Amino acid sequence: MEVLKQKLKRIAPKLGFMSMMMAGAVLQGCGGGDANQKSGTVDSDAAAAVYVPPGQHDEYYSFLSGGFNGQVSVYGLPSGRLLKVIPVFTQFAENGYGYNEETKPMLMTSHGFVPWDDLHHPKLSRSDGMADGKYLYVNGNNTPRVAKVDLTTFETVEIMEIPNSAGNHCSPYPTNNNEYILAGTRFSVPISTDKAGMGDASLSEYKEKFRGSISFIKTNEDDGHMELDFQILVPGFDYDLANGGKGPSGDWVFFTTYNTEKSSTLKELGASQNDRDYLAAINWKLAAKYAAEGKAHEMPANYYHNTMDHNSHIAKSTVKKSVRYLLPEECPGMMYLIPAPKSPHGIDVDPTGEYMVVNGKLAATLPVFSFSKMQQAIENKDFDGEVNGIPVFKYESVLYGEVQEPGLGPLHTEFDGRGNAYSTMFVSSEVVKWNVKDLQVLDRMPVYYSPGHLMIPGGDTREPDGKYLVVMNKITKDRYLPTGPELLHSAQLIDISGDKMRMLLDFPTLAEPHYAQAIQADKVAPNSVKFFKLDENTHPEAVKKESDVSVTRQGRTVKVNMTSIRSHFTPDNIEGVQVGDTVIFHVTNLEQDWDVPHGFAIMGANNAETLIMPGATQSLRWVPKQEGVYPFYCTDFCSALHQEMQGYVRVSPRGSNVPIKFSTGEKKPVPPAQASVN
Amino acid sequence: MEVLKQKLKRIAPKLGFMSMMMAGAVLQGCGGGDANQKSGTVDSDAAAAVYVPPGQHDEYYSFLSGGFNGQVSVYGLPSGRLLKVIPVFTQFAENGYGYNEETKPMLMTSHGFVPWDDLHHPKLSRSDGMADGKYLYVNGNNTPRVAKVDLTTFETVEIMEIPNSAGNHCSPYPTNNNEYILAGTRFSVPISTDKAGMGDASLSEYKEKFRGSISFIKTNEDDGHMELDFQILVPGFDYDLANGGKGPSGDWVFFTTYNTEKSSTLKELGASQNDRDYLAAINWKLAAKYAAEGKAHEMPANYYHNTMDHNSHIAKSTVKKSVRYLLPEECPGMMYLIPAPKSPHGIDVDPTGEYMVVNGKLAATLPVFSFSKMQQAIENKDFDGEVNGIPVFKYESVLYGEVQEPGLGPLHTEFDGRGNAYSTMFVSSEVVKWNVKDLQVLDRMPVYYSPGHLMIPGGDTREPDGKYLVVMNKITKDRYLPTGPELLHSAQLIDISGDKMRMLLDFPTLAEPHYAQAIQADKVAPNSVKFFKLDENTHPEAVKKESDVSVTRQGRTVKVNMTSIRSHFTPDNIEGVQVGDTVIFHVTNLEQDWDVPHGFAIMGANNAETLIMPGATQSLRWVPKQEGVYPFYCTDFCSALHQEMQGYVRVSPRGSNVPIKFSTGEKKPVPPAQASVN
Repeated sequence: MEVLKQKLKRIAPKLGFMSMMMAGAVLQGCGGGDANQKSGTVDSDAAAAVYVPPGQHDEYYSFLSGGFNGQVSVYGLPSGRLLKVIPVFTQFAENGYGYNEETKPMLMTSHGFVPWDDLHHPKLSRSDGMADGKYLYVNGNNTPRVAKVDLTTFETVEIMEIPNSAGNHCSPYPTNNNEYILAGTRFSVPISTDKAGMGDASLSEYKEKFRGSISFIKTNEDDGHMELDFQILVPGFDYDLANGGKGPSGDWVFFTTYNTEKSSTLKELGASQNDRDYLAAINWKLAAKYAAEGKAHEMPANYYHNTMDHNSHIAKSTVKKSVRYLLPEECPGMMYLIPAPKSPHGIDVDPTGEYMVVNGKLAATLPVFSFSKMQQAIENKDFDGEVNGIPVFKYESVLYGEVQEPGLGPLHTEFDGRGNAYSTMFVSSEVVKWNVKDLQVLDRMPVYYSPGHLMIPGGDTREPDGKYLVVMNKITKDRYLPTGPELLHSAQLIDISGDKMRMLLDFPTLAEPHYAQAIQADKVAPNSVKFFKLDENTHPEAVKKESDVSVTRQGRTVKVNMTSIRSHFTPDNIEGVQVGDTVIFHVTNLEQDWDVPHGFAIMGANNAETLIMPGATQSLRWVPKQEGVYPFYCTDFCSALHQEMQGYVRVSPRGSNVPIKFSTGEKKPVPPAQASVN
Repeated sequence: MEVLKQKLKRIAPKLGFMSMMMAGAVLQGCGGGDANQKSGTVDSDAAAAVYVPPGQHDEYYSFLSGGFNGQVSVYGLPSGRLLKVIPVFTQFAENGYGYNEETKPMLMTSHGFVPWDDLHHPKLSRSDGMADGKYLYVNGNNTPRVAKVDLTTFETVEIMEIPNSAGNHCSPYPTNNNEYILAGTRFSVPISTDKAGMGDASLSEYKEKFRGSISFIKTNEDDGHMELDFQILVPGFDYDLANGGKGPSGDWVFFTTYNTEKSSTLKELGASQNDRDYLAAINWKLAAKYAAEGKAHEMPANYYHNTMDHNSHIAKSTVKKSVRYLLPEECPGMMYLIPAPKSPHGIDVDPTGEYMVVNGKLAATLPVFSFSKMQQAIENKDFDGEVNGIPVFKYESVLYGEVQEPGLGPLHTEFDGRGNAYSTMFVSSEVVKWNVKDLQVLDRMPVYYSPGHLMIPGGDTREPDGKYLVVMNKITKDRYLPTGPELLHSAQLIDISGDKMRMLLDFPTLAEPHYAQAIQADKVAPNSVKFFKLDENTHPEAVKKESDVSVTRQGRTVKVNMTSIRSHFTPDNIEGVQVGDTVIFHVTNLEQDWDVPHGFAIMGANNAETLIMPGATQSLRWVPKQEGVYPFYCTDFCSALHQEMQGYVRVSPRGSNVPIKFSTGEKKPVPPAQASVN
């Protein structure tokens, strides 16, 4: 309590609008929850509600962004158990992603190999306004990229760089039938239309030379493949978050902006001067029509598009050299600006598509805009000036109403499908439930501490599945056993099926989840691939029979085409390698069974291991620097004789005359027993 | 059931000793558990037993090895929640470990920079035979290394390479007062005593030229600092696992061996020929005495010892050029061999120090050796020949007894402190409880699937804390929602406080835990550091006041000494950088509060981000390749104005005349509010 009071004292003068009445109400809410939660009694109902007995499965897959770890974390709900880490933008030594030869091209960009990114928003692909469980699209915030994860294999299969963008934050937002994935820049940069890449400009020229961009990525209906169709060049603001319309507003997408002051320094102050920034509304269908009808210009570009082949598991990079763009001033009716409270963060459209909630993090009220009023205002030309040729609505003409005293620091909102909205309050550390129609606050749940995003399964779709809510808190501190100066982030699972919210579980989450999406397990699980079929493996270096293995030298390169199966590698003795050779191991896993990867690692490699899924081939590069006999072994415990699954490479001094020689594994042992469930 | 029957049919002819009676008994055990666990009823007692209500803390820290991810995972018990991933041997882009300038030296070895390893065995430092919660020692299996994690900061502070080793598997095993950390090689290699590194030898010369080594790492009482004191060169077997004696056997350490056949190929068969391999018993105190008294030889070596400075957080590498070694044949009484069942895996000494359990993975019985009988046999010279001058005991002269029909494929054993032992059966997928004195099986618990190690908090110490048991299963398959061809590994928490074991929880674990250790939370939590004191920061590039920031050019290198604090970087505008410059950002986090790291990342870097703990300085290298204005920003959501915590670096074409220029952040904003708990 004391801490919260201190906090309010600090924030109150700054925000300057919060009555002490209001502050008192918030404190009461928090204090109550706090005392209850620390009382030491076990809520056995809550315990039973989140417990998934051994051998049973969770009800939902939830996909949490890894934030600054660059990956996606898959958690089961309601247990809060981590089921998988899917490597996307960041090297993942555990399985060789970004280290082995097949996956390195996935991380290529116009800036070279980029082994990390900041992954913020996972969005499930959509059919008819609902998540369909086929793909997960995610953004790379730092070096602007959008990636696609295939949910049959839980693997990243496509990464596309976004040109003319810097901080690809309001991204990726799919339209209701996955027609487009929208990706807006966070930072504006000096976009040069006459040459590829950013231009050189002084920061003192920010106001004149810097622009933002919003990218329209077209997806292929059959396989979700992405192509950058065109961009819209937009004013030099910061673009924060986005959301698609639905139902009547299904042709529209919305983006929050901040720093409409166009400050380039001290943004903490500089971007918080104006009382209002904007919500940008874009008619994506009209934009696509304009682009198709020849309104688009073309400019040079230089961006990478990396795809993973389904059968060879080899990634390749394609470099694209131009991009089409639209200018809002040339495309009437395509884009409008709605005045929104100071530095808004999330924009969330309710399931009906009528209400647009703007989470103004520094605002005293939570405004809800009306799509039908917006249509009316367009018709009536109810504008209050324009910015770069983009009409600006009058605030009142598009406002449905404001939630009064919602809490301090609203950031994000989702919906339960029963007419209620749930908003996170960063500063007052609570989730606030309110009714979308009458804008009345119905309930408050204290959360620990400083919530960012929240997520209800399907909570941004046409039909939310309003049973659970996961709130992702930004600050952890004392919520778990201390682990030094840094703790994992803290998520909380709340039961929202009743009138009042009910806290069920605290669970720590990897790195920093910025957003999550969840989907019923039966929409994904039945399509999950258990292994890759060996006879569909088209890797050119694959070896499908032990009798076909080979070790060959070409100049200073030695190529080892080998196999793994419980419990041996073939060959397991290799001689004739010399110090300084480049050795490339192409290892094919001959297993055809679920959950039997083999790992391959060799001592002293300046590389990771590579984990080879059943039926697949993966390749590791190694340049031995000293003579010796180097063991390799299987790194993933695979059978009772796993510890015997090892071999050696003899490395002789440079110029030695030891010929290439390798064992062929003639005496084949009986496959050892192991628990097997199919 | 059907699957298990099939499995037994496959294994039975191979093992050749298992009666169908026995097989039936095992199946009955498994079937019962299986049916119960899949019945769909929630065991509300189990749910309550593992539920840690929001805001409360777990009872134990458990440290699970990350196996092929090269890290340590910290889980809370009984909740099974992941609390932290501690980067050790593997690059960790999430916080810049192995990418930023301070930590890169941690991953240097005699083979160059090695960004990955296979981490198997976490062992807590010891005082008086008990875990003291100060440090965690872990092994790197692939490129032989031992690391030390400081449990006040949960950071890796020391990594030492082990010469003359290949596959540092039976490692690291501390003696009862942490006098030594023992580290045995898994693979034997051609050790050359006249030059550094491995020698070149043909695999056909394995029997003559290959040797193993056991390393004695001395630790400093004050700070746990390691120094390689000496090695013992041992016969050319494979060395698998180790365990220290205690009480009467406290001067001894024990190592299991396999491949005493000295096969170099087809080990699956070749290393499984002999009915018996050996348990090696070494008197470490006597060895240390021999080494101190001049029995040690010296040979050239070349190995890295990397340490992280406590105050600057800068790692540095030292290269060591020689190592001392003992030869068993010259050191009578130092080493003995005990015949042990075929290819044994774990060796586990009971809390009294009298009983040594050898888990012979291919054996029909589980032999328990007696330390007092061993002492007697030494006195009586009750030997059955010798190997390389090392006396071999007669099996019967040192055997206490055999557990009959323990199950199929015993791998590991721990103890509850009440006279009971618990062993994992890999093939029959169960944990078997048996009495150490009378060797009778007391209980069986089916586990899913194929358990490797198990762990009881303190289960390898003088006084186990026999409340919980965690079993780490090697195969997952259908235990969780499917996530493609690979699933996380499967751990299970079992209540062992009663006569019968009680299954509480399934929880997935990152990568592959090979072993774990757990300790009561109150032995670690009170010493956990919450932030680093800024005035103790001795990093030479630290900037402790915003007014001291600088950007300086020296030739083609630009050095940026900058600060971060909620919610801005100083400087946030930098100009005068040119394409191809090497820019080094030294970022000091001025915060002095718990759990407020700031992340620093810059667009397009061929690098990770770096996460800077409060009070620390971290440095990131960047070579921009194209002109433009590159944003940087804080990657860890730190305050309500986090999204405004950003800046820009202008990169002009090579040879441009834009001078170095940077903002100084004169207008200091009020620190924004944020939930704060101290």
